[in-house]
Amino acid sequence: MSLNVALAMPVHTAQAVFPPRSLDPLEPSLNLLSRDPIQDFHTPAGRSLLAKADILITGWGCPIIDEAVLEAAPRLRYVLHAAGSVKHHIGDACWERGVQVSSAADANAIPVAEYTVAMIVLANKRVLQIARTLHSTRTDVLAEQLFPDMGNYRKKVGIIGASKIGRHVIRLLAPYDLDVVVSDPYLDATEAAALGVQLVSLDELVAESDVVSLHAPSLPSTRNLMDAALVRRMRPGATFINTSRGELVDQDALLARVEQGDLYAILDVTTPWVLPSDSPFYTHPNVLLTPHVAGSLGNELERMAASAVDEALRLARGESLRFRVRVEDLAFTA
Amino acid sequence: MSLNVALAMPVHTAQAVFPPRSLDPLEPSLNLLSRDPIQDFHTPAGRSLLAKADILITGWGCPIIDEAVLEAAPRLRYVLHAAGSVKHHIGDACWERGVQVSSAADANAIPVAEYTVAMIVLANKRVLQIARTLHSTRTDVLAEQLFPDMGNYRKKVGIIGASKIGRHVIRLLAPYDLDVVVSDPYLDATEAAALGVQLVSLDELVAESDVVSLHAPSLPSTRNLMDAALVRRMRPGATFINTSRGELVDQDALLARVEQGDLYAILDVTTPWVLPSDSPFYTHPNVLLTPHVAGSLGNELERMAASAVDEALRLARGESLRFRVRVEDLAFTA
Repeated sequence: MSLNVALAMPVHTAQAVFPPRSLDPLEPSLNLLSRDPIQDFHTPAGRSLLAKADILITGWGCPIIDEAVLEAAPRLRYVLHAAGSVKHHIGDACWERGVQVSSAADANAIPVAEYTVAMIVLANKRVLQIARTLHSTRTDVLAEQLFPDMGNYRKKVGIIGASKIGRHVIRLLAPYDLDVVVSDPYLDATEAAALGVQLVSLDELVAESDVVSLHAPSLPSTRNLMDAALVRRMRPGATFINTSRGELVDQDALLARVEQGDLYAILDVTTPWVLPSDSPFYTHPNVLLTPHVAGSLGNELERMAASAVDEALRLARGESLRFRVRVEDLAFTA
Repeated sequence: MSLNVALAMPVHTAQAVFPPRSLDPLEPSLNLLSRDPIQDFHTPAGRSLLAKADILITGWGCPIIDEAVLEAAPRLRYVLHAAGSVKHHIGDACWERGVQVSSAADANAIPVAEYTVAMIVLANKRVLQIARTLHSTRTDVLAEQLFPDMGNYRKKVGIIGASKIGRHVIRLLAPYDLDVVVSDPYLDATEAAALGVQLVSLDELVAESDVVSLHAPSLPSTRNLMDAALVRRMRPGATFINTSRGELVDQDALLARVEQGDLYAILDVTTPWVLPSDSPFYTHPNVLLTPHVAGSLGNELERMAASAVDEALRLARGESLRFRVRVEDLAFTA
């Protein structure tokens, strides 16, 4: 007998993440109870779907699944989240009952890694600075004279954090002639070698890399991870890329290095977001700011829908979840 | 007995392309006659090296190797070019005598492909437009409202020309969730499938691609390849990337589409280069200009040196050249 599937998320999430055909693959092997998502678990409509659901597919803004919700969901065994972090909607009761939880954090990591790799390539080649100079001078720009160190041949790229995102960056960089090093307290040298990169200390990474890219999760323990001393240790001419969270970085130290003129920064996140309008980050030629766009946006939300649908199809085939989240993971992931 | 190797190129080329240690790998198995390059084949020093050389390693600005040069080079059997096109320095006499010629065009193609892939990713996500808006408005930018079609999930990328560069672009794009189509009069569907992409007509490619990237060589037959009709056929919202040559494109038609506001352009080459300072390409927010920097620059020149050195080492081991150029290739390559 097929498993019953219900959706739980605000309607606007469902509209953005699940385009019309995206749920169709469920139908041959699973029983999709409704294409309308549960928005509130405590309404009669919500309770009626909960009563039958074996699987909940959730999305951004899904209300918390706590003990009261679980009491109304006697069959619920799986929550498949079509987004990254599950910390906001998976109550302790889910872990206690042994509900299996999966997330699309891996799918959500892909666009961040793609953004990062594009920026690494352009940073090593100084393309954005050169383009800016050409657009403003409107005359020939002798790029190699401006930037004798330009180029993507055998530069060193330092990845802080072998997170899902960090690992996708490493994977996408594999075909490039770049030396990739990684720093992560939870990784050992054997695992790093299996990823095709070298494990180094954070100090060494920061001191030796031409590009330093931050892919650690935002946790109490990672606040100010990239502290003033580390910011000052970065090589002259290095580029710092942050697609993680602003609070992981000593932003004043970063600004001081940028204003000194020997450091480049590509920041998809800052503290605060938005920076005050007089922030020098807006005007310094060595800085590119983007408004938290590295993550899944636009059609990239569909990848997370596809990931959740794939998980449901694995269950229909009697397979285990591919991207299962365990309660013990939550301490060191986003 | 080891083969004798001489260098032939201007001193400034040698300094830029061959860093101090780059020739060291030759020494165990080949006899490097001199680390000073032949700058003029007709000086006594030049003639003395030519008289002994089995292999010439050449670089940008190498003078032509014609019949008179070959007469002074009785042992010469191989010319290994540490740059792309061999059209400027390989005289007909080389082909007639059966001198084997190799080029670093493949190594030279890599940075162009890396630039292109970075730009494809940023273009599909509208990152450069969004960054520009953030830097100018200094307030939060609601990216998805500005660009509902943003994202790199299942967009279509059209590669015009399965050239060395086009093939490297295809290779680097393989791990992305993008549909890559290619158009090339010298490619058949089986070869395209082996590359992992679909062969389509140029018309179809231009009409259906979210990003159109030009990788055809500049030849009499490719002049105005991307003509006004094709420029007008591009999808609204599409991005056109040119890292090839300006004369392959109807630039007036391109400007008209850009000014209409529904086309984006990333141009590493234009006609003329440099554009006049009143060109609207400098100011339109949908345009990024770069000054012919996609190709090998800075440390990327070392990749071409390494390629020529690798070819020499193949000969020392009795192997055939990996990147041999044949006279019949010249009609349809750069």
